[in-house]
Amino acid sequence: MVLSGPATEKYCRDWHGDVTSEAVAVLRPRTTNEVADAVKTCARLGLSIVPQGGNTGLVLGALPDRPADQVVISLERMNAIRRIDPDDFSAVVEAGCILSDFKDAVACEGMFFPLALGAQGSCRIGGNVSTNAGGINVLRYGMTRELVLGLECVLPDGSILNGLSTLRKDNRGIDLKQIFIGAEGTLGIITAVAVKLAPQPDQVATALLGLNSLDDAIALFRRARRDCCDLMSAFEFMPPVAFGLAREAIPDLEMPISGDHAAYVLLEISGSGLVDINDLTERFLQAVMEEGLVADGVIASSTAQARNLWLFREGMNEGQAKRGPHLRTDLSVRLSQVPDFVREAEQAVIDVVPDAICVSYGHIGDGNVHLNVLPPAGLSRNEIEARIHDAKKAINTVLDAYNGSLSAEHGIGRLKRTEHEARIAPAQRALLAALKQAVDPQGLMNPGCQLEYERPS
Amino acid sequence: MVLSGPATEKYCRDWHGDVTSEAVAVLRPRTTNEVADAVKTCARLGLSIVPQGGNTGLVLGALPDRPADQVVISLERMNAIRRIDPDDFSAVVEAGCILSDFKDAVACEGMFFPLALGAQGSCRIGGNVSTNAGGINVLRYGMTRELVLGLECVLPDGSILNGLSTLRKDNRGIDLKQIFIGAEGTLGIITAVAVKLAPQPDQVATALLGLNSLDDAIALFRRARRDCCDLMSAFEFMPPVAFGLAREAIPDLEMPISGDHAAYVLLEISGSGLVDINDLTERFLQAVMEEGLVADGVIASSTAQARNLWLFREGMNEGQAKRGPHLRTDLSVRLSQVPDFVREAEQAVIDVVPDAICVSYGHIGDGNVHLNVLPPAGLSRNEIEARIHDAKKAINTVLDAYNGSLSAEHGIGRLKRTEHEARIAPAQRALLAALKQAVDPQGLMNPGCQLEYERPS
Repeated sequence: MVLSGPATEKYCRDWHGDVTSEAVAVLRPRTTNEVADAVKTCARLGLSIVPQGGNTGLVLGALPDRPADQVVISLERMNAIRRIDPDDFSAVVEAGCILSDFKDAVACEGMFFPLALGAQGSCRIGGNVSTNAGGINVLRYGMTRELVLGLECVLPDGSILNGLSTLRKDNRGIDLKQIFIGAEGTLGIITAVAVKLAPQPDQVATALLGLNSLDDAIALFRRARRDCCDLMSAFEFMPPVAFGLAREAIPDLEMPISGDHAAYVLLEISGSGLVDINDLTERFLQAVMEEGLVADGVIASSTAQARNLWLFREGMNEGQAKRGPHLRTDLSVRLSQVPDFVREAEQAVIDVVPDAICVSYGHIGDGNVHLNVLPPAGLSRNEIEARIHDAKKAINTVLDAYNGSLSAEHGIGRLKRTEHEARIAPAQRALLAALKQAVDPQGLMNPGCQLEYERPS
Repeated sequence: MVLSGPATEKYCRDWHGDVTSEAVAVLRPRTTNEVADAVKTCARLGLSIVPQGGNTGLVLGALPDRPADQVVISLERMNAIRRIDPDDFSAVVEAGCILSDFKDAVACEGMFFPLALGAQGSCRIGGNVSTNAGGINVLRYGMTRELVLGLECVLPDGSILNGLSTLRKDNRGIDLKQIFIGAEGTLGIITAVAVKLAPQPDQVATALLGLNSLDDAIALFRRARRDCCDLMSAFEFMPPVAFGLAREAIPDLEMPISGDHAAYVLLEISGSGLVDINDLTERFLQAVMEEGLVADGVIASSTAQARNLWLFREGMNEGQAKRGPHLRTDLSVRLSQVPDFVREAEQAVIDVVPDAICVSYGHIGDGNVHLNVLPPAGLSRNEIEARIHDAKKAINTVLDAYNGSLSAEHGIGRLKRTEHEARIAPAQRALLAALKQAVDPQGLMNPGCQLEYERPS
């Protein structure tokens, strides 16, 4: 169960490979009781704990940063699916199960677990819950929080909180599981999760649309939200530069519509049973094209074509990765403010880093914009760092004016802690500190993540 | 702002009129700052606080029970709608706003606030959030928790936690608002709420169906969940006795279908825009009737007819109220276990109280059963109390065997505290006590509600 030395490397390197670290050891318990024993042992030895799932987080929340006194507890060997109950629309799964393995298993039962994100082939359910992961289906199914029915957690004192109920409705007072969702392991270790399942959508319509502006994209979202009821499952915004970036990663990718539009939307409408999803999608798009809200568009006529449309979205990210180190953000503002915010923030970046390329895309229905900034090629590491620093500062100034969030879906981790701490209200900070002190008085769990709590003397 | 003596009576009597109490005084602040001042004053005087909204709760959570040292803080004068933003699908409303007033105001903007429950003409938003209220639309839109984007709360030290953001996605660490939702005022006072809005459904199909068994009702729900995608907004189960009870309250109520069926379902499918909801509902019901899953049914052909179908559901409750004191429960079990549970629990009741009538109904899609027990007419108060006691004990024994919840949607309050405390796991209790101590170290907020925390010495 214990790894040390070189065997710990993959647990001490972040998903992008930008940051490497070290830990005293990596523990890989197989059962909830082993997790509890590991926690007690660490407490006894005065070692603190960094819980880790698939280590795919984007904010360094699961990466040790104090090599001399931190132990990584990886949940990767606690990966069983304990139960799938299609008749109850629920399942129970251990924290270390890979998201796509779980999705595949429930699909075999005709069911659907809606959480969907780029890392789903590597990320693990416990990490998804600990970070309250978002992804492309949030606008219909909610964040991970809304998919969770119950949790099993190991607390910092080694006791086990068993709340793995699959009851849909249970209103017995304060809902303790909520404090662990999004806590990024700072209050305890999630070992298993009870979740809601939805019926598998057996009809999925996917369309790539070209629009004249980001304002039109917002108007289109509002229109789709009303005209397509609750059947819209994704609404992704991409800028014109997306196509070029995608082709840098996937050179033979075909361009399904003209690349001349100011904004692109990847729209997915889905459902099961008696609603004719293709017909609905066609009628909707016909209406909005006649009105000029959509300039151009293509509806996938096969699963392969739909897959191809999503490849642009994924290729765009891979293309950015190939450009080397760059600024990644995960911002949210109010839906109606997205166009103004994007214009203003991009301008603020160009004002301070004129040679950079801004790539703004995201889950527009949630007001969630990833405004990434790519420095030009050929710079030194220091020059890149300076541009990232300046761009981030410029964006945050605009974001603050919009009362936006600097983490819409990725969490705070260690990467955003300083920015987060600079903005947190005193009453909120005091309450968080009181909560941390109440649950983890020794400061054992994931120190340095989210907030720098005062360490016990 | 301060009421005392007889003027406090309506704040000290429960919704059913079963319980009356007294308080030192009733405070009715108009602003968040006045709430904060009231809290500080109470703390200074050594008085504890019972926060109250519309006083429509069913578990005595907002009713004082220690007249000598409790002050009621009523939020009824903090009833402004601060903002409705249809373009953002959000609104901000003060805690004292009556639910139906708020629903009407957002409807004027073409929007929909999905929380719907019997008391909506009297209950207030702050109470809905504090109790995490359920109601008839939970299966589609979730409990109140899932509708909340942000909260403004006054903490026990009089500080104000301002979290009234309307961002759809904000993942900046531990989500503090979650601890106040469902806390029934034991951690602070909710003064305002930011909520999600949905598009107003402009098509609503309502059907009353007769089925051969409760098992068929569950099978029908599962089928509807799949065939009607996410467009089902209510699925209420009623027993045959419902019609008789409804007519006791509304004598001229017409019986829309035969009263001979073993089970009845009130089904609502709704949506906006391009989906033809009536056509969907008709095709669905035709299919399930051909298969024999539904024996008989009627679809409302007008809003007035739909209203009439809902009158059965509401009249059934009024009819029970007219029978005088009786056992009301609010239970949940796993969806697939509902039929077995209802049979077993009703049998257990009849075994100990043979002269009682069991009325089991509820929000079946959530596994939420209200198994009420009506004693026969003509008994003394003591005889009634004895039957209620015996029936409750019998039901709870069965419920425990099913790992069910004794509060699916009403909360714990003071009414269910003892039953709840008897079932809570030590690790959970310890964590709740630590949380309470951290947030409300003086034990100022709603003592006696949910759990009997140790009082500070």
